Amino acid sequence: MTKVLVAGFTGAMGQKAIRLVQESEGYELVTGFAAGITSKDPKDYDLPAGVAIYGDLNEIQTDADIWIDFTLPSAVYANTKFAIEHGIHPVIGTTGLTDEQESELQKMASAKQLGGLIAPNFGMSAVLLMKFAKEAAKYFPDVEIIEMHHDNKADAPSGTALSTAKLIDEVRPEHEQGNPDETESLSGVRGGDYHGIHIHAVRLPGYVAHEQVLFGGPGEALTLRQDSFDRQSFMSGVKVAMDHVLDLKELVIGLENVL
Amino acid sequence: MTKVLVAGFTGAMGQKAIRLVQESEGYELVTGFAAGITSKDPKDYDLPAGVAIYGDLNEIQTDADIWIDFTLPSAVYANTKFAIEHGIHPVIGTTGLTDEQESELQKMASAKQLGGLIAPNFGMSAVLLMKFAKEAAKYFPDVEIIEMHHDNKADAPSGTALSTAKLIDEVRPEHEQGNPDETESLSGVRGGDYHGIHIHAVRLPGYVAHEQVLFGGPGEALTLRQDSFDRQSFMSGVKVAMDHVLDLKELVIGLENVL
Amino acid sequence: MTKVLVAGFTGAMGQKAIRLVQESEGYELVTGFAAGITSKDPKDYDLPAGVAIYGDLNEIQTDADIWIDFTLPSAVYANTKFAIEHGIHPVIGTTGLTDEQESELQKMASAKQLGGLIAPNFGMSAVLLMKFAKEAAKYFPDVEIIEMHHDNKADAPSGTALSTAKLIDEVRPEHEQGNPDETESLSGVRGGDYHGIHIHAVRLPGYVAHEQVLFGGPGEALTLRQDSFDRQSFMSGVKVAMDHVLDLKELVIGLENVL
Amino acid sequence: MTKVLVAGFTGAMGQKAIRLVQESEGYELVTGFAAGITSKDPKDYDLPAGVAIYGDLNEIQTDADIWIDFTLPSAVYANTKFAIEHGIHPVIGTTGLTDEQESELQKMASAKQLGGLIAPNFGMSAVLLMKFAKEAAKYFPDVEIIEMHHDNKADAPSGTALSTAKLIDEVRPEHEQGNPDETESLSGVRGGDYHGIHIHAVRLPGYVAHEQVLFGGPGEALTLRQDSFDRQSFMSGVKVAMDHVLDLKELVIGLENVL
Repeated sequence: MTKVLVAGFTGAMGQKAIRLVQESEGYELVTGFAAGITSKDPKDYDLPAGVAIYGDLNEIQTDADIWIDFTLPSAVYANTKFAIEHGIHPVIGTTGLTDEQESELQKMASAKQLGGLIAPNFGMSAVLLMKFAKEAAKYFPDVEIIEMHHDNKADAPSGTALSTAKLIDEVRPEHEQGNPDETESLSGVRGGDYHGIHIHAVRLPGYVAHEQVLFGGPGEALTLRQDSFDRQSFMSGVKVAMDHVLDLKELVIGLENVL
Repeated sequence: MTKVLVAGFTGAMGQKAIRLVQESEGYELVTGFAAGITSKDPKDYDLPAGVAIYGDLNEIQTDADIWIDFTLPSAVYANTKFAIEHGIHPVIGTTGLTDEQESELQKMASAKQLGGLIAPNFGMSAVLLMKFAKEAAKYFPDVEIIEMHHDNKADAPSGTALSTAKLIDEVRPEHEQGNPDETESLSGVRGGDYHGIHIHAVRLPGYVAHEQVLFGGPGEALTLRQDSFDRQSFMSGVKVAMDHVLDLKELVIGLENVL
Repeated sequence: MTKVLVAGFTGAMGQKAIRLVQESEGYELVTGFAAGITSKDPKDYDLPAGVAIYGDLNEIQTDADIWIDFTLPSAVYANTKFAIEHGIHPVIGTTGLTDEQESELQKMASAKQLGGLIAPNFGMSAVLLMKFAKEAAKYFPDVEIIEMHHDNKADAPSGTALSTAKLIDEVRPEHEQGNPDETESLSGVRGGDYHGIHIHAVRLPGYVAHEQVLFGGPGEALTLRQDSFDRQSFMSGVKVAMDHVLDLKELVIGLENVL
Repeated sequence: MTKVLVAGFTGAMGQKAIRLVQESEGYELVTGFAAGITSKDPKDYDLPAGVAIYGDLNEIQTDADIWIDFTLPSAVYANTKFAIEHGIHPVIGTTGLTDEQESELQKMASAKQLGGLIAPNFGMSAVLLMKFAKEAAKYFPDVEIIEMHHDNKADAPSGTALSTAKLIDEVRPEHEQGNPDETESLSGVRGGDYHGIHIHAVRLPGYVAHEQVLFGGPGEALTLRQDSFDRQSFMSGVKVAMDHVLDLKELVIGLENVL
């Protein structure tokens, strides 16, 4: 039985993580942590009697094997450090770590030979899309990305679209794409340009979070598409992470690197 | 039997038009015109004995009812004028008329109460896409356009995409679309902006000519898509034009206005 | 000010309808009806003081112009009849009327020259899809339908897919579609056959309710697609119905016939 | 310089293969073979002076490293056997080998430790689609396949769709998919059933050869799509095969197993 602690267990994602652990064969929820909560009675949170509850990081005493973290940008570094120091495999879904913090945590984990995972996106459809896009780009160097989101989203492009472009950029052969004399009669129609990869962002009501990667070659096309309708989808990725993290020997960034 | 003249009958599109007329019930090919040809023997062009052949506009003598034109930008104005003056209903697939020339020709046709059609795009899928997009925009004012073409195309956006945006702009209620605080972390990702309608142009090898119109509203989405794989597709639109042009009372611009 | 009664106002759709009326300029909620409720105090339902509440059809006294109905199959006939008899324009979103009941109600409405609407689907994307599909089939007689739903749906094909096929069947010229020697090496792959129109039903978790209509012609393709993510989407169609129903002179079946 | 023989070099695919070899750095066309041709003068085939030409399998004398075969179902077995016996790495694009013939040829190649490849489909978009579909099915066990082809195609489903289903079937966990009480009100709409994987085949004019694999999971969807517009697309796959075949130690079936 693998023992699991959920940090941020009172939040929306934390609650989903709790349910995932409880419904997964071979896993046992042993500890819940949510900064600032006062009651330590698991019944107050609809949890079984044996689950230890903590509201203060420094008070935590646990024999958990895995630390699932859906907390806050301001808390995630301290949490992950705590987990590593106590030999608990971190599975981090909270965003907000800087590049420096990530490499520092990776060094700590390395020193302890402790496997862990930091994943900005646990949606399996997005993770597989990125993985496949990187692989396809070896054979189809001509590629464009279209991401589509609800119209409340303020920033463009999406983090996933940019991550996809970076992954593709790592493998595709250096080359010129498109007509060298290309002109825009309406500025911006050819999208954003990331190292020659064009990225387009669509914003419409009704849409949730979607991404397409379009590859073209002589006489054929390959299209990868993922649709996220609901953050519930993240839990399938968290399950994959739980299943792999004990076997990892380092702190990996990105679920696609575990598959 | 409706009698048809094909101008530019030796070109690729002209040849397709010839075949279309010959295969269409109720139509008869009576005259072929191609500027500069010297032989007037229809057999030299694999045409039946009765078809009159001309190489010079001013020599043409015909009792044709319809003038189908797939010639050159430099010739189309004179050709269309000739047709109208001789009471022949023009069906013009040649591009290159200026706005001034178009309205001049419309005046001439009006004076003669002669119906005709000038269509930059005879592809029925593109024509219907434009027509439906205009109609849908009344109910879904939030819309974006994505056009996708082969990577030899030098200009962006495509004429069809821009025409679609103009048609939508005629009917959709004035409004703000998207997040008012929208920012681009990669310049251009939100595409070109035509009166608030975002247009995106994709260029990839393998692609031919494709357009999508994406509508979004609370809890739902509507997407129109057309794919042109081959200019052969133009002939179904020419047939629709042939079937309607005798009933028109003016020189219409755009096949979508005839449907 | 157009006065509105909402029948079934305590249900999920009824609540959305209530909010729609309250947020729509030019409309006023005057009456709420929900069979069997006992409290007649609008405050108990978070409604303004002036709204009259009824739990029994026969007790209703109202000067409403429009009767919006989201009730039960067992109640919808009596409700619609009541509305017509009292000169209230019915807008019926409840399913379950038989063909006989529909024509009987149409006769009653005709006799009173009262406009009304019965719509099995108020989602504007689905309604427009059906309308456009019918129109496109005149020019593209070769067509197939793919509908995709969540995997809890027990029946196939969806009502909307079948309605779409029926509309297409009304207009497309009689003809053979596909290879006359077609064989299936795996039974069923060519889908269901409705008067020569092939229909395919996909069932997958994560999906909600989606429909595609695929048209093909020489060298080109036209695809219409609608996605319903949320029944919230029905309200835009109810609004369209409210805006049109006072001008109708008969009891129309299908929102697409009002557009 | 890797030396290449092209069998069936006078056919459409053979001609493309010839051009591919000539345009590929590091490869040299040394021999052309086409059963039954009489002239042995390379000039008669627009080939350079040094290329040896054969019209009879038994006369061939060559030091080629690779044997590219685009011939006929009736000839492919003898050709491949000849190549293996003479230590030439076969790259076989010709279909028609029976399962028995394939395993016999694999045994021969094994005995000689000679690498080779038999590929029913060299289109990289189709090959990658199959590879990705197999991988995605580990995480998304719920899946359906839609293939779309021109309406002259007589058999359904396509070979690629069936191959895809077989690959998915190898890895996806045994499980029930869809609603257990599912009913079809129109027979066949749920498609063909290959070990629980539903396959749908669409046939429309204008279409060429296309395949979609649709995966769904809680709150998300992943879709893989490939479009083949032109058999020209096969040549990118033949190039990949040429680049790998010298390193193979056995006769592999399926290009996806080489990537």
